[in-house]
Amino acid sequence: MVNVAVVGAAGYAGIEAVRLVLGHPRLDLALATSAADAGRRVASVYPALAGATDVSFVEPSVDVIAGAADVALLAVPHTASVELTVPLLAAGVVVIDLSADFRLLDPAVYEKWYGVTHAAPELLPQAVYGLPELDRAGLAGAKLVACPGCYPTATALAIAPVLESGAASASRIVVDAKSGVSGAGRSLNASSHYVAANESVRAYSAGGAHRHTPEIEQTLTKVAGRDISVVFTPHLVPMSRGLLSTVYVDVADGFATQDAVALYKERYRAEPFVYVHDEGQMPSTLEVSGSNRAAIGVVVDERTRTLVATCAIDNLVKGAAGQAVQCLNAVLGYAETEGFERPVPVI
Amino acid sequence: MVNVAVVGAAGYAGIEAVRLVLGHPRLDLALATSAADAGRRVASVYPALAGATDVSFVEPSVDVIAGAADVALLAVPHTASVELTVPLLAAGVVVIDLSADFRLLDPAVYEKWYGVTHAAPELLPQAVYGLPELDRAGLAGAKLVACPGCYPTATALAIAPVLESGAASASRIVVDAKSGVSGAGRSLNASSHYVAANESVRAYSAGGAHRHTPEIEQTLTKVAGRDISVVFTPHLVPMSRGLLSTVYVDVADGFATQDAVALYKERYRAEPFVYVHDEGQMPSTLEVSGSNRAAIGVVVDERTRTLVATCAIDNLVKGAAGQAVQCLNAVLGYAETEGFERPVPVI
Amino acid sequence: MVNVAVVGAAGYAGIEAVRLVLGHPRLDLALATSAADAGRRVASVYPALAGATDVSFVEPSVDVIAGAADVALLAVPHTASVELTVPLLAAGVVVIDLSADFRLLDPAVYEKWYGVTHAAPELLPQAVYGLPELDRAGLAGAKLVACPGCYPTATALAIAPVLESGAASASRIVVDAKSGVSGAGRSLNASSHYVAANESVRAYSAGGAHRHTPEIEQTLTKVAGRDISVVFTPHLVPMSRGLLSTVYVDVADGFATQDAVALYKERYRAEPFVYVHDEGQMPSTLEVSGSNRAAIGVVVDERTRTLVATCAIDNLVKGAAGQAVQCLNAVLGYAETEGFERPVPVI
Amino acid sequence: MVNVAVVGAAGYAGIEAVRLVLGHPRLDLALATSAADAGRRVASVYPALAGATDVSFVEPSVDVIAGAADVALLAVPHTASVELTVPLLAAGVVVIDLSADFRLLDPAVYEKWYGVTHAAPELLPQAVYGLPELDRAGLAGAKLVACPGCYPTATALAIAPVLESGAASASRIVVDAKSGVSGAGRSLNASSHYVAANESVRAYSAGGAHRHTPEIEQTLTKVAGRDISVVFTPHLVPMSRGLLSTVYVDVADGFATQDAVALYKERYRAEPFVYVHDEGQMPSTLEVSGSNRAAIGVVVDERTRTLVATCAIDNLVKGAAGQAVQCLNAVLGYAETEGFERPVPVI
Repeated sequence: MVNVAVVGAAGYAGIEAVRLVLGHPRLDLALATSAADAGRRVASVYPALAGATDVSFVEPSVDVIAGAADVALLAVPHTASVELTVPLLAAGVVVIDLSADFRLLDPAVYEKWYGVTHAAPELLPQAVYGLPELDRAGLAGAKLVACPGCYPTATALAIAPVLESGAASASRIVVDAKSGVSGAGRSLNASSHYVAANESVRAYSAGGAHRHTPEIEQTLTKVAGRDISVVFTPHLVPMSRGLLSTVYVDVADGFATQDAVALYKERYRAEPFVYVHDEGQMPSTLEVSGSNRAAIGVVVDERTRTLVATCAIDNLVKGAAGQAVQCLNAVLGYAETEGFERPVPVI
Repeated sequence: MVNVAVVGAAGYAGIEAVRLVLGHPRLDLALATSAADAGRRVASVYPALAGATDVSFVEPSVDVIAGAADVALLAVPHTASVELTVPLLAAGVVVIDLSADFRLLDPAVYEKWYGVTHAAPELLPQAVYGLPELDRAGLAGAKLVACPGCYPTATALAIAPVLESGAASASRIVVDAKSGVSGAGRSLNASSHYVAANESVRAYSAGGAHRHTPEIEQTLTKVAGRDISVVFTPHLVPMSRGLLSTVYVDVADGFATQDAVALYKERYRAEPFVYVHDEGQMPSTLEVSGSNRAAIGVVVDERTRTLVATCAIDNLVKGAAGQAVQCLNAVLGYAETEGFERPVPVI
Repeated sequence: MVNVAVVGAAGYAGIEAVRLVLGHPRLDLALATSAADAGRRVASVYPALAGATDVSFVEPSVDVIAGAADVALLAVPHTASVELTVPLLAAGVVVIDLSADFRLLDPAVYEKWYGVTHAAPELLPQAVYGLPELDRAGLAGAKLVACPGCYPTATALAIAPVLESGAASASRIVVDAKSGVSGAGRSLNASSHYVAANESVRAYSAGGAHRHTPEIEQTLTKVAGRDISVVFTPHLVPMSRGLLSTVYVDVADGFATQDAVALYKERYRAEPFVYVHDEGQMPSTLEVSGSNRAAIGVVVDERTRTLVATCAIDNLVKGAAGQAVQCLNAVLGYAETEGFERPVPVI
Repeated sequence: MVNVAVVGAAGYAGIEAVRLVLGHPRLDLALATSAADAGRRVASVYPALAGATDVSFVEPSVDVIAGAADVALLAVPHTASVELTVPLLAAGVVVIDLSADFRLLDPAVYEKWYGVTHAAPELLPQAVYGLPELDRAGLAGAKLVACPGCYPTATALAIAPVLESGAASASRIVVDAKSGVSGAGRSLNASSHYVAANESVRAYSAGGAHRHTPEIEQTLTKVAGRDISVVFTPHLVPMSRGLLSTVYVDVADGFATQDAVALYKERYRAEPFVYVHDEGQMPSTLEVSGSNRAAIGVVVDERTRTLVATCAIDNLVKGAAGQAVQCLNAVLGYAETEGFERPVPVI
């Protein structure tokens, strides 16, 4: 058994990581940290886990983590992650980071979008970007994995096949994404009050202001082999979980819906976590709720020569904790599906 | 007082029309028809109207309508509308039609998208398209008003200023819209079951298949003075009311967010039902719920030279019954705001 | 026109009061106070009111209120209310209080349940409890009105007829109530986070711990003419608005459902805001959303000789701001329905 | 591996049973029947199961079931169940029935409440009522298990300890229960339309009309060792899953909250699926969503000598399919927790 520490375990992504580690046949939960909830039982804060674990949250501490764990899943904000990662790596702990600290290859881009100087740019070359369906080559044996953001995950899976194949004829892509409220985190703010979020859809960080923008561009540029720019507008929708990314790109004449569906089905044929819908079908976030799956639908608007692809994920699973465990499986040489075999509730 | 018949009054748009007529100081509800609920009291089907009206739904009949009403608000499906409109106009009844039957100028386009031959193409030239904020010239004294669809309303209001002004540099526009479940109507189907719609976002009629597409293009082409094509993807989101249209269009170099906000504020300065948010703010559907207002936010993504505008409306009010009453006010020479003076619940 | 100050206007009940005053033909909004939002435009905090008002929130101040207003609607917490009421009354301002400060006749009961000594017990005798459907005698010309709590309103309306009539044979009543999340207020706390409240029903303050308990007992005891005790369990349900109180009381042999329905219909026949459903029907909170109405259904369980009555109200309207305006109408000698004539959105 | 047929597998309880069987290490899904969806792939109707199974729904047929399965989980309506059970038992198939057909010991009571004559009353004596936490004695090796209804499950677990212990001093119990919309099934009807159910709470089958009433009384009477009658009012609340039963019973003087909590904790100490909250805590349905757990809170209202207990379950799991699998585990001699080891999503 591999001992895993979940750091920042009381947040929504963190507690999902706890849940997945507890249900994983080859992982043990070594400890769960939370600065805010230290001393409280996990099952007291999240009664859903009563019966599943007796551990209590502890203060985050490098020594404690390194003393107990082989692997640290970091579900803490950017800058906090890099501060932990440096000593954890030095202590021989494998780091699976859910923050943005190691996603961007270029520290200047990080600095521009996050407003802080990167505290350990020397680690960036060894960080492996953990979106296995697009590139799993470096994951086996990796010491540091940067898990993608939720929006970049859904967006890249939605559009990668058509960029890789060369069928996309333009370099600018429109990404209109919709996220449930858990994406905004567990901390209290006016926009996640039930009454504010209920019966409400609205855009936020519109106009290219969202920090996932450069990450999406970096990934799509790599996939396409040429510079890709994106117009990205996230929206908040009244549901707890789920994220749908609707992506628009121009395609060449003659590339029809059936070509697109065939391309996508072939591209993801061997991927256990990706499901491509048949022609005429589009995925809903409900069908991936609680699971590590991504569900994709694709269509070509013949009138305007635009491919429209939508990808639904659970923002807390495939968009965060689930992808982290999938990557950890790859790091450890396990099947990526280890721990995900049992289906989650259907509706 | 003007006597108004609401036809198809038991549907969601119809009952909103009933509500608005009952609350209007210069309109009387002459009758409310419903083939399915004929004989039942309105207040029995919709207890929210107990105390507001004692009338019962009656079978739709041209003779009965023409005998009792000066104006008919038709909230019935396309083809049913045109069948009623011909005799009602002949009988001297003013028709405010909420269906698609008189929206498209070209009967061939209607036939292509709706799959039926138009039953009265000779009436199309006299139908006035009722989106007053864009063109109210023909409304005064009109005999036949075609009320726009919910998606065309929000989309046209979102993007008209930049098309009119010439700041938009492209002819293809991406429209990504999100609607509450009432937009799918009151009839029962699998996708409007609570359990199917809850915690779920999904696209439908993607790839340019939605029938509102040609209507949006017709309106935007007129506004822009040149051919505009749209890629339109509607989505279903888990809320009862509300519609948000997020619209993307290329803009010329040098046209910045502050220019856009200033343009929009100036364009809609005199419009009582349109509210343009300050720079940095985007509207939510919650803030227009129950009202005839449209709330707009606009931003320019400087990196990609893309203007992103979002417009929130209540699909049943500004997107249907409210716009119908606003148009009727214009037809009758009343202030367009007549009957809408009192604010609706805030949250 | 009567000038009204809404104090604590940025909370949910307060902003509903603002909305109702703005829509009332004989009231003017003199000012709206908010300590937290002072200086911000009302329409900036609540864009739904853009177009309806240009005023900004101001700091609460007795001098400012007394200088501008004939009436103060106080939507502030208990103890804050009494502190304002004393000087406002002295300055000749009529006070309509939505807090608990003047609801309980006995200051010892107030002290026991609210944990503070009442600051102005000498005012209690002149405070009129404002539930007009049960007793409107003292309202005309009153200087100080104590508006009932939301749970006491729905519960008293649900059960008063059977207590008044003597058909209830027991002195202990079970009250199981369900409230939407707006009932917990606009301030941020863990239980009103969207993710915590969504897909969740739970009891709170169970075991007779809720502060509305003595108010319910006081009202029912007066209505029954004998001591009534209640077991009261409020629940939080995932919706923004609405409150349903389900009330259980033993009834004498021979008193059947049809007797109960007849009794209730007769009792509330002249009440414009109360609607009693026909036998076999029970109200939903949706049918009263946004309105000042109370909808009631009643049935007798013949097997156990228990009457079950449910009453649905909008907690922010009939349970708070609407009732305050209804009472103010009565104070001023207007029809109680003044300002409520136009129906609100139906679904 | 034991081969299991899920009959009526396309309904909400049925598909949860399919999900649980697919995730169970010692059960194989032999077939899934659905008269309405026969021929369609399970993953096509429920895309959430894409990747988990390739089977298609088949027509229900005794021969096909008996030919392929050792066990049949029947998730079909009453009367349909008994019709299948007779030949299935004759063919040696173990029947786990989720319908009401074998829950009531007395066929006359069944006939009275369900309006039909029982088709196989001779089977009633051998049917084992499957609520293991109250009585698991007969389950090992049983041929026919009658799984309790969702309301009886939550209600019995909520109140059994105090009835068993003799602390309850009355014979009439008030049960006020709240269910999510999935409890009303997948078939389309007006009350499960999203727009009708959203923002709405209402009672239904009030006054003792709900068919679960005699089942609750039968169970509580057995537990108490004396006749117990219940006043039962179910409510529909706007959420997909979850059921909360709030139960009221008189208790003897001197029996305080701490006694109740201690009693409940002791009573359920060895039960892996029951969690009793600490004093002062009440469960939410969210904390049991997707799991087979029941979460209970209990308090004594000292003023009125009333014990108030609430029990939260997932109506589709512990209230239906999960309990069926738990019972099947007991029948087969497996640990009851087999197949439930992995925690489900936390929020």
